[in-house]
Amino acid sequence: MKSDELFALLRRRGVLWPTAEIYGGAQGLYDYGPLGARLKRRIEEAWTAWFIGLSHDYHLIDPAEILPEAVVRASGHLENFTDPEVTCESCHTAFRADTVLEKVRPEGVDGLAAPEIAELVRANQVRCPHCGSTQLTVPPPFNLMFGVDFGVTGRERAYLRPETAQSSYLAFARMWDVGRHALPLGIGVVGKAYRNEIAPRQVLFRMRAFTQAELQIFFDPAGFSVPFDIVREERVPVLRVARREAGEESPEWVSAIDLVQNGRLPEFYVYHMVHMLRFFRDVLKYPADRIRFFEKSDAERAFYNKIQFDVEVHLESLSGFKELGAVHYRGDYDLTRHGEGAGKDFTVTLTGGARVLPHVLELTFGVDRNVWAVADLHLGKDGERTVWRLPPYLAPVAVGVFPLIPKEHGSYAAHLAAELSARGIPVQYDDTGTIGKRYARMDEAGTPYCVTVDGSTVGDGPERDSVTLRERDSKVQRRLPAAQIAAEIAPRLAPPWPVAR
Amino acid sequence: MKSDELFALLRRRGVLWPTAEIYGGAQGLYDYGPLGARLKRRIEEAWTAWFIGLSHDYHLIDPAEILPEAVVRASGHLENFTDPEVTCESCHTAFRADTVLEKVRPEGVDGLAAPEIAELVRANQVRCPHCGSTQLTVPPPFNLMFGVDFGVTGRERAYLRPETAQSSYLAFARMWDVGRHALPLGIGVVGKAYRNEIAPRQVLFRMRAFTQAELQIFFDPAGFSVPFDIVREERVPVLRVARREAGEESPEWVSAIDLVQNGRLPEFYVYHMVHMLRFFRDVLKYPADRIRFFEKSDAERAFYNKIQFDVEVHLESLSGFKELGAVHYRGDYDLTRHGEGAGKDFTVTLTGGARVLPHVLELTFGVDRNVWAVADLHLGKDGERTVWRLPPYLAPVAVGVFPLIPKEHGSYAAHLAAELSARGIPVQYDDTGTIGKRYARMDEAGTPYCVTVDGSTVGDGPERDSVTLRERDSKVQRRLPAAQIAAEIAPRLAPPWPVAR
Repeated sequence: MKSDELFALLRRRGVLWPTAEIYGGAQGLYDYGPLGARLKRRIEEAWTAWFIGLSHDYHLIDPAEILPEAVVRASGHLENFTDPEVTCESCHTAFRADTVLEKVRPEGVDGLAAPEIAELVRANQVRCPHCGSTQLTVPPPFNLMFGVDFGVTGRERAYLRPETAQSSYLAFARMWDVGRHALPLGIGVVGKAYRNEIAPRQVLFRMRAFTQAELQIFFDPAGFSVPFDIVREERVPVLRVARREAGEESPEWVSAIDLVQNGRLPEFYVYHMVHMLRFFRDVLKYPADRIRFFEKSDAERAFYNKIQFDVEVHLESLSGFKELGAVHYRGDYDLTRHGEGAGKDFTVTLTGGARVLPHVLELTFGVDRNVWAVADLHLGKDGERTVWRLPPYLAPVAVGVFPLIPKEHGSYAAHLAAELSARGIPVQYDDTGTIGKRYARMDEAGTPYCVTVDGSTVGDGPERDSVTLRERDSKVQRRLPAAQIAAEIAPRLAPPWPVAR
Repeated sequence: MKSDELFALLRRRGVLWPTAEIYGGAQGLYDYGPLGARLKRRIEEAWTAWFIGLSHDYHLIDPAEILPEAVVRASGHLENFTDPEVTCESCHTAFRADTVLEKVRPEGVDGLAAPEIAELVRANQVRCPHCGSTQLTVPPPFNLMFGVDFGVTGRERAYLRPETAQSSYLAFARMWDVGRHALPLGIGVVGKAYRNEIAPRQVLFRMRAFTQAELQIFFDPAGFSVPFDIVREERVPVLRVARREAGEESPEWVSAIDLVQNGRLPEFYVYHMVHMLRFFRDVLKYPADRIRFFEKSDAERAFYNKIQFDVEVHLESLSGFKELGAVHYRGDYDLTRHGEGAGKDFTVTLTGGARVLPHVLELTFGVDRNVWAVADLHLGKDGERTVWRLPPYLAPVAVGVFPLIPKEHGSYAAHLAAELSARGIPVQYDDTGTIGKRYARMDEAGTPYCVTVDGSTVGDGPERDSVTLRERDSKVQRRLPAAQIAAEIAPRLAPPWPVAR
């Protein structure tokens, strides 16, 4: 499905819609409805189980989203978290400079100053994408952070955090103190980040308020020991810089050990690449042939990143590979900067007496983007019907429970729904419309199982207390005792974690 | 425990700490560490299971926290969401006017204009609580919302939402469209709200960024039918206005039917009071004799609230009754205001053809405040040890798993921990310090069970594959097969929901 069609379907089903849509919406903000909220939550829980589950020493924290100015000054965001902008004097629209200059300079405008961008615009007679005017100007770079006046004096400035990672860096000293004084130490956050994007677009792909799931692993640069043997032979689809420069877009499948021995990547780095791959392929069930690990070149990656591969997935709705996560080897940049900013030394003493400033490996994951990807990749047509083939453990609703005739079978069905719910199975009771329409609604919502209570269930015949169980993917219907439904379904909802480690 | 002592303990255990504490913190912002994040999440899940579980037609959504200005103009927050402030010209500290005037005017300053407050300060020769100066001035009222410049033009203004409820009102039309066109319809939100409090204090009680759990139930004012029989005889601790005016502080226990027949409260209202009571008493396990439903008088409650009882709980750490939730009958105020603001009519057509503008019953619950209350009421001394007697289904960690000697028993214990975790039991592996110290840490963290793997477990004797199970509250230790631990513990983690309805 194309983006517009997919969004229309998700909106119609109450999965998500623009924030304050009764007021015309707000660019770059979306609300998740009941199905979307549950799906997003399931993806967050899956991420947490998978990545925080990698070690007993990895922990999830829940920090505030507002940061004092001193934090974003030290992190460099106050100075550098800017996007070059081009504005049209004729129609007063603002654009990202890299978008306006896409054809002229496909490699982007990172590192160019405003006058250089203005010169590019002038020399190439670039026109406004909106009204066609050549009256384009390049204002000073635009900081993407949302600032807030904090406190009552008007003298304190604070910012909505531009990335969840900062909260983990701030927490390192406290987490070290309360923990067992050993590295690696992982500090994860699943939460909101905020960016005042110049041109929000592609629905959940460039939002102004979005949810990230990020794990910062602090480790001893002298040695980050991982159980490499369990990933040694696994192949990873990498698109390395050299291959990219040769014009290739498709990845090569290279074994983990090969990436270490010939690809000159550290074992700990490749180990985490494999776990990322497994998460996208084995948990979110993205087709392996749509995934690639896209290596960023020296010029493309942030200067503090020593190694960076973005995890990109090919999405039909957005006509190409899109970044859904990344693995960043950030070195000691963050603790060094906050050490300087806060006037503290974050060097720690390990058992044995060695004193080290930890390095950071960052695993980052865009929650909203993956909600979209899960729709793009699993929601589609099956003949006449629209089906969302969600893995059962990600489905917002696991079982739809229907009374055939609400007045006659409603009480039995409601009782069954409550019983399933009490066993922790997410249930939706639905008594509106024909059974066919209810199946169709559940198919669109990704519900893997439906149960119908009918006259035979509540009658005195041989089928008393039996119900019809219908499977979403096969459409197969079977008759079985109501009392067996939970035992039949529960094992099929089992998630593919905890992760092997 | 007093507030300072309790906060010091929670901070030392990594439950929570001030945001950006390495920079000296930020007033009114706190980060939850691993234990706090899990506890908060458990409380949110309990609230959701309990209140969203009240009806098949109640749903949880996950909306953005930033609202366009038009929304807060219509809701009245732009004009009225202010706190009168008093500032000291000598030491430049800002105070809430009601705090400064507490002794002079115990009923508060709601409804007074700035000149009236200034006159009270002058006439009573009120002094600055901080430096003692009488140089106090009363600036124009201070709006508590955090504004943000939204978009790149600088002409769009938006606000961090001051309450989650607004997001539910905005969603009503969409939820009606995607739903089954019937009332009551419940729209719940668990999420952040933001207020630029003049004087943040009492740790989690007056924060600048905090989490609310609120359910807005839209219902037909001509009839909101509830299964009143299941609550009919239940007694509720109410402190009504008449009794308050007679100087009483303790509640009377009045039956639900009595509150309807003699207390002139609607059945639907009392029904939800009982469910609130049950949640605080039966789920969060607050002692019944510390709970009261505090009725707000005409003068005290917001003008659009027809009925308001705050749920207050007596907390030792804060030396009194504190508001932890509330039941608000808001009438049609919100849909009327947003109808005017958005130029829309939110009247709906019911089956049968009746057209109604729904009324709203709001159930509100402060998540952070209840994290604090759960600490205040369940964490304390038991002889020498400090124990957090959390209900097992709320405990951040259900089972601590210890190898007696890490090198010898670590692998067995880690395997057992992984097995329990795979069954959905929240586990913490701990191999640091003596077993006594590990018990002490788990007692403080509220972990109800600990399992120790020792030489007999891994040996060849009769106790092979058996472990020691130790209970937090009784301190009783028993020996049983490792393979039985999950079956032994899982039933004791079962929560007291779904709610009877």
